Amino acid sequence: MVKQVRAARTRQALVRAAAEAFAHDGYARASLPAISRRAGVSAGALHFHFPSKDALAGEIESAAASMVEELTAHCRSTGGSALGALVAAIRRLVVAFAADPVMRAGFALSGDSARDGGTAVLDVWHGWVRDVVGRAQETGELTDDVSPESVAGAVVAATVGFEVLGGRDQDWLTTEGMVEFWACLLPRLAAVPGPPDLARVLEAEATGDRGAENSMAGL
Amino acid sequence: MVKQVRAARTRQALVRAAAEAFAHDGYARASLPAISRRAGVSAGALHFHFPSKDALAGEIESAAASMVEELTAHCRSTGGSALGALVAAIRRLVVAFAADPVMRAGFALSGDSARDGGTAVLDVWHGWVRDVVGRAQETGELTDDVSPESVAGAVVAATVGFEVLGGRDQDWLTTEGMVEFWACLLPRLAAVPGPPDLARVLEAEATGDRGAENSMAGL
Repeated sequence: MVKQVRAARTRQALVRAAAEAFAHDGYARASLPAISRRAGVSAGALHFHFPSKDALAGEIESAAASMVEELTAHCRSTGGSALGALVAAIRRLVVAFAADPVMRAGFALSGDSARDGGTAVLDVWHGWVRDVVGRAQETGELTDDVSPESVAGAVVAATVGFEVLGGRDQDWLTTEGMVEFWACLLPRLAAVPGPPDLARVLEAEATGDRGAENSMAGL
Repeated sequence: MVKQVRAARTRQALVRAAAEAFAHDGYARASLPAISRRAGVSAGALHFHFPSKDALAGEIESAAASMVEELTAHCRSTGGSALGALVAAIRRLVVAFAADPVMRAGFALSGDSARDGGTAVLDVWHGWVRDVVGRAQETGELTDDVSPESVAGAVVAATVGFEVLGGRDQDWLTTEGMVEFWACLLPRLAAVPGPPDLARVLEAEATGDRGAENSMAGL
């Protein structure tokens, strides 16, 4: 049992170290010895858990995809406005980019055309955004003169770009400009002035992450 | 003279081949022999023009930065609405992503955190977008309740994301969803219903690239 806990911790340390190494050196240049050194784990232990760099990348992608699923499920479960859920999810994603190298590496790997991998993380995120915008259309929340597909495309493209720009300049992840922008924009795409709970979600988000956590849990 | 023309052509072929190789294999993995083969040029000729892969990357970035400068200067010179110029520039950039591997590679290199390079292309694009949105604010074109910095940030993040997503799936570059979205969105950020020339620019853009070229030249 103790052994299993230790193995899970080692595995987690390796995933995190790999995510940091990929962010710093790029997937192609990051080396397995550098990753095991960063994790404080022997080369043998790394090989025991992950036979290849590609296996590490796959684990990062699947961890990030799970985080996106959890984050979006939480935002959807708050009920009420679909556009409100979208704004809340964008904000949580941006906070995760700043705080969690695995989330950022998952997005980067998923968008890396040089890697013969899946696009799991992007697919999960794009799928959810498409669904929630579609829901906004069905319920008459979305204005008629914009297509749900193009709103979803712009949101996904912007979040991908945010992750890329944040890798070069942390200011992109600390300033809340983009979140502020979407929080301003999405209600403008609403067919009618947002329902009361949209206003509440936006207000909750604006009070900061901890505040948002609490307010949203109470919705 | 003939020799100079040939040298310029060889240089151009190498830059294009390198851009394609970077897009296909990533900067770190693309090899100089593969680039010279792709360009149909000897290894010696490649080395004569570009002593290193980094020199090739620098040339791509500076070519892409010049193209962005040209494209934005053209959109600004059409006069009239600042938001109209922004919509026109976004459209032209997306068309360039689809048509020109050098433009796409320039953006990708500029955003690649694993490369110790400049951020020339992104700096030029972000600087112009910031200027034009600032101009919209000064002239009272932009609504009061959104900050110019956050509009500029979202536009730049979305264009970067569009390039990344287009690298994995060409549909992102052929569908006009994102352009449609910005063309719909930006007038919504206008303080007052757009001035007549904004409507004309949007209409011109909607008639297709060649149509837009003609209409805009005539503005």
